[in-house]
Amino acid sequence: MKLVTAVIKPFKLDEVRKALEAFGVNGMTVTEASGYGRQKGHTEVYRGAEYTVDLVPKVRLEVLIDDLDVDQVLGVIAEAARTGKIGDGKIWVTPAEAVIRVRTGETGPDAL
Amino acid sequence: MKLVTAVIKPFKLDEVRKALEAFGVNGMTVTEASGYGRQKGHTEVYRGAEYTVDLVPKVRLEVLIDDLDVDQVLGVIAEAARTGKIGDGKIWVTPAEAVIRVRTGETGPDAL
Amino acid sequence: MKLVTAVIKPFKLDEVRKALEAFGVNGMTVTEASGYGRQKGHTEVYRGAEYTVDLVPKVRLEVLIDDLDVDQVLGVIAEAARTGKIGDGKIWVTPAEAVIRVRTGETGPDAL
Ligand SMILES: Nc1ncnc2c1ncn2[C@@H]1O[C@H](COP(=O)(O)OP(=O)(O)OP(=O)(O)O)[C@@H](O)[C@H]1O
Ligand SMILES: Nc1ncnc2c1ncn2[C@@H]1O[C@H](COP(=O)(O)OP(=O)(O)OP(=O)(O)O)[C@@H](O)[C@H]1O
Ligand SMILES: Nc1ncnc2c1ncn2[C@@H]1O[C@H](COP(=O)(O)OP(=O)(O)OP(=O)(O)O)[C@@H](O)[C@H]1O
Ligand SMILES: [Mg+2]
Ligand SMILES: [Mg+2]
Ligand SMILES: [Mg+2]
Repeated sequence: MKLVTAVIKPFKLDEVRKALEAFGVNGMTVTEASGYGRQKGHTEVYRGAEYTVDLVPKVRLEVLIDDLDVDQVLGVIAEAARTGKIGDGKIWVTPAEAVIRVRTGETGPDAL
Repeated sequence: MKLVTAVIKPFKLDEVRKALEAFGVNGMTVTEASGYGRQKGHTEVYRGAEYTVDLVPKVRLEVLIDDLDVDQVLGVIAEAARTGKIGDGKIWVTPAEAVIRVRTGETGPDAL
Repeated sequence: MKLVTAVIKPFKLDEVRKALEAFGVNGMTVTEASGYGRQKGHTEVYRGAEYTVDLVPKVRLEVLIDDLDVDQVLGVIAEAARTGKIGDGKIWVTPAEAVIRVRTGETGPDAL
């Protein structure tokens, strides 16, 4: 299994969530975050106003998926999150060695 | 070393924390999160009221542990977090290749 | 590529960010967190007042970097985050198998 983490523009959360649901992922975890990329946050526009601070508000998503779905899930998130303007986000994949669904005690891919 | 991440019901945080302390873990990191699982958040009950929104409030825990403790720590968290109702949570394990305790500069298992 | 995660004292965020920028990292993601280490949070001092609660406010940073930079980035963060008092923080490294820069679609080290 893999853990896909994406840091995206907050107003894109709903579009990304719907695209992931349409693809068929079983769940996701969302946290509020902030950050900067290559422009150090200086030239990003957030909610219409140019930000002068360094840390721009972002949303951080985590999606646990089967190995076979990685490439497609990356494509789904990237496409839905893209505006073409700077600050669109970053997505990364880390290995998930074990997963448990707490209510049922299921483990492995069945737990997703 | 391993990083165990758990997304659980917020009111279970204290019970899980106490169970982990009783087991002997050395620390943990907590962030507020929200999310959905297989029911897409629609039928989960939070604080007695049925939620109609998609993202249900959750707590996200991270615990750095020794490889030898993984199975037991997963069991401790799952047992303490379980209510038997939907939305009890998800736990996953990722490899941690290096750990540093900032104050002392210790690394590896000694840093946990 | 690697994902370096650090949980540090909140007032050290700015110093760590500046040190990472000076080193040349391309970006970072920040989330608010809380936690405890070996002292179970009981004896840490936060903003001048001794905390009696268990979960002490912390800041959680994530930095995606090239494999070659791991040791140096760990050193940069640890040095900038250190006060010498308990609660200075924990840093860990996990493997990042893939990275995407959403705007451009670049992948791998070019996406950092
Ligand atoms: N190297 C990095 N490590 C961790 N998080 C990062 C990194 N780079 C970017 N991020 C996170 O992703 C968010 C969006 O980054 P961003 O899209 O600006 O990347 P970028 O490389 O500057 O691309 P662009 O030129 O399209 O802006 C940042 O606010 C930050 O939260
Ligand atoms: N595939 C997933 N990826 C990332 N996070 C997930 C995933 N599935 C669930 N989560 C997180 O775990 C939380 C709890 O999930 P939940 O317990 O509802 O899973 P479930 O598979 O639907 O099990 P149940 O049928 O018992 O509700 C979600 O709110 C979300 O934050
Ligand atoms: N084992 C752990 N797993 C996950 N997070 C941890 C762990 N230990 C510490 N942390 C996180 O790092 C923060 C700072 O930890 P801290 O620096 O107190 O570690 P420590 O080992 O007690 O070192 P010190 O003796 O210098 O206080 C905690 O508040 C928590 O968020
Ligand atoms: Mg940018
Ligand atoms: Mg569910
Ligand atoms: Mg401590």
